[in-house]
Amino acid sequence: MKKITLIYSGGSDSYTLLHHALSQGMSVDCITFSYGQKHIKEINFAKDNCRELGLEHTLIDIGDPLSIFGSSSLVDKDNKIPHGSYKEESMKSTIVPNRNMIFMSYAIAYSIAHNIDEVWYGAHAGDHFIYPDCRPEFLQSMDLAAGLCDPAKVSVKAPFINLNKGEIFQIGMDLKVDYAKTWTCYEGQDEACGKCGSCVERLEAFAQNEASDPLTYS
Amino acid sequence: MKKITLIYSGGSDSYTLLHHALSQGMSVDCITFSYGQKHIKEINFAKDNCRELGLEHTLIDIGDPLSIFGSSSLVDKDNKIPHGSYKEESMKSTIVPNRNMIFMSYAIAYSIAHNIDEVWYGAHAGDHFIYPDCRPEFLQSMDLAAGLCDPAKVSVKAPFINLNKGEIFQIGMDLKVDYAKTWTCYEGQDEACGKCGSCVERLEAFAQNEASDPLTYS
Repeated sequence: MKKITLIYSGGSDSYTLLHHALSQGMSVDCITFSYGQKHIKEINFAKDNCRELGLEHTLIDIGDPLSIFGSSSLVDKDNKIPHGSYKEESMKSTIVPNRNMIFMSYAIAYSIAHNIDEVWYGAHAGDHFIYPDCRPEFLQSMDLAAGLCDPAKVSVKAPFINLNKGEIFQIGMDLKVDYAKTWTCYEGQDEACGKCGSCVERLEAFAQNEASDPLTYS
Repeated sequence: MKKITLIYSGGSDSYTLLHHALSQGMSVDCITFSYGQKHIKEINFAKDNCRELGLEHTLIDIGDPLSIFGSSSLVDKDNKIPHGSYKEESMKSTIVPNRNMIFMSYAIAYSIAHNIDEVWYGAHAGDHFIYPDCRPEFLQSMDLAAGLCDPAKVSVKAPFINLNKGEIFQIGMDLKVDYAKTWTCYEGQDEACGKCGSCVERLEAFAQNEASDPLTYS
């Protein structure tokens, strides 16, 4: 049985990826990162879903975000999260520099220590415009580095990297994924804001599938 | 003026590298990692030396080591640090899986956030036999990944990667580096043990330069 370490944020893409792996009979260990994001709603979704599915779940706190990452709007409370689509220039304030390499490096270490074959993460085509660390060439370079860092030769994969969010949701709906158990909004209010890039893209993905989102929007 | 982020352990190689960079007029920010190593002696040397030199110093705690790294003898108190030379098979228990990629990924993030051009780390030729993440091909793959993770294109360099420890100490002695301000031993006793791979290599490096170590050995 193939064993994977999934970088699982608690959001809809990685939750779909989790079910995609489970549907193929894989053994899945999940890692969620606390990196100073402005709320812990998605982390709690990740914890609860792993407990419900009986999966090993490790929460890693990567330390003081402002001293490492500077003033990304995802971690700096003085920097407001922009509204609109990911295609807009203003969304670049949501870049957390090199966040994904940090996540992958921990997941690779965990995989080597636990004899796990592959690291999976949920990057997708909608991320490419704005986030360099979600692009195929970055993934390939990390897979190369992972193969050289230890004799164990862990692979790094992003099975959804060429799909848009609508196509990911289509896979999820085929697998009967319950999207009420996911959190996408960059804000951490009781209800999703519906205005940040992440909400806008999620709503478009449901619309693309002629489905409605089970979450409530403010 | 070129700006670098130095991965600075508090040991003799990275301390020499620090002085090598300063002697070339570079601006140096240092990062030291607490990764569950069995003592904090080298971390304290790093803190004190940065304070004395007036350098920016960031200490990053990378979280619960056993859940991430498993039972490396550098972090697991139930796993005794072996004695002897790095050339011996038993020394493989000192491998901390993918440790250097984690260190580099943080240092790259820090460099992007602080507009720093390069990450430097102190890998050297004596490490190659046992630690895959100190080899030139790993360094090259990380430099490639770093150039792709962000538009800022930080470089990753290990200026001593083809030198042995004796040659590094020769550079340090030419720069009047005070090796009493460094800690190399894997054990954290009052005096260096003189028996672990790290001590053995340090003593050989002094002998190669016909010099004596200012540290006291038990």
